[in-house]
Amino acid sequence: MNESHQAADKKVAVFLADGCEEIEALTVVDLLYRAGIPVTTVSVSGSTFVTGSHKIRITADTCFHQLDIDSFDMLVLPGGMPGTANLAACAPLAEAVLRFSREGKQVAAICAAPTILAGLGLLEGKEATCYPGREPDMRGAILTHEAVAVSGNIITGRGMGCAIPFGLEIVAHYLGAGAAAALGENVVWNVGKDGKAL
Amino acid sequence: MNESHQAADKKVAVFLADGCEEIEALTVVDLLYRAGIPVTTVSVSGSTFVTGSHKIRITADTCFHQLDIDSFDMLVLPGGMPGTANLAACAPLAEAVLRFSREGKQVAAICAAPTILAGLGLLEGKEATCYPGREPDMRGAILTHEAVAVSGNIITGRGMGCAIPFGLEIVAHYLGAGAAAALGENVVWNVGKDGKAL
Repeated sequence: MNESHQAADKKVAVFLADGCEEIEALTVVDLLYRAGIPVTTVSVSGSTFVTGSHKIRITADTCFHQLDIDSFDMLVLPGGMPGTANLAACAPLAEAVLRFSREGKQVAAICAAPTILAGLGLLEGKEATCYPGREPDMRGAILTHEAVAVSGNIITGRGMGCAIPFGLEIVAHYLGAGAAAALGENVVWNVGKDGKAL
Repeated sequence: MNESHQAADKKVAVFLADGCEEIEALTVVDLLYRAGIPVTTVSVSGSTFVTGSHKIRITADTCFHQLDIDSFDMLVLPGGMPGTANLAACAPLAEAVLRFSREGKQVAAICAAPTILAGLGLLEGKEATCYPGREPDMRGAILTHEAVAVSGNIITGRGMGCAIPFGLEIVAHYLGAGAAAALGENVVWNVGKDGKAL
């Protein structure tokens, strides 16, 4: 399809840490794969083998230290604990997130992970959302309490149950709202008996 | 909590085949883990290493041939292609599904996988749902076209975008609708700005 051809040079990196929320991370991977948008899973531990917060074992495509991070144009941070703390503790990832933000490239985070962005000062004056209860760690953000928030180059999502709209927002960034809505219908997200969007 | 203690002897097997829909399989695992219901991922290939239909690499807990299947009380079949075909081709799994159904134990399937149950004659006169377009392969079923359908000992789901309500229905089977609804709110599924169910 045309859209996936247009998107062929776009590259999204989804970061995986031990203790990450598996569905938050992998729903993005799944939806981008379906949309034809190149996506790479990147472990921040020394190994490609990652165990999520619900003991699901995933093999990432690559490790952070093997990565040419500047070949990507979006960084995605899933939440979960202690996954979020492990991502926050990865100094080169924080450096990359700061640089991406400065350069106007995309950064996305969901659940507890938007607090990483807040901790780096990236949410000052920006509309954002996070897992309920984590609001005190969202310094400077204009909290929307919505499933997904988009503000400039930053996309945030609220939690595991919002992983599909979060992933579709990333698809919409590349391919437009119409293609994202069509993909939502294709995966039978939020549609009625007739297969159309509710 | 009391509910998870009550559920401690319950065992759910989620079957993974190469080409399975990763989110359909893993959302069930994630939600059951959160609910304290023992869940085991079972590869039907000769290896615990499975690659899903969107190239996500998962390591299953065990392989089918190492399994004491009668120690479980629910079998869950995710969809995806060619994962569904690979599950359907696993003769000992079909035999187990038939025996579980005869014995009144639980069987659950989502997306294209309900057609496996239909092929075994298990959906005759039962309300069921499946991925849109797969209805001709749902011999004998009373099609509801809903996100999830429950009929006797069989739970069916419609597609990847319905994986959360499908998983919550399995949780409800063990712990009741109230606990499932609370878990849905906890993962921020289908809730409003106030964190309450829509």
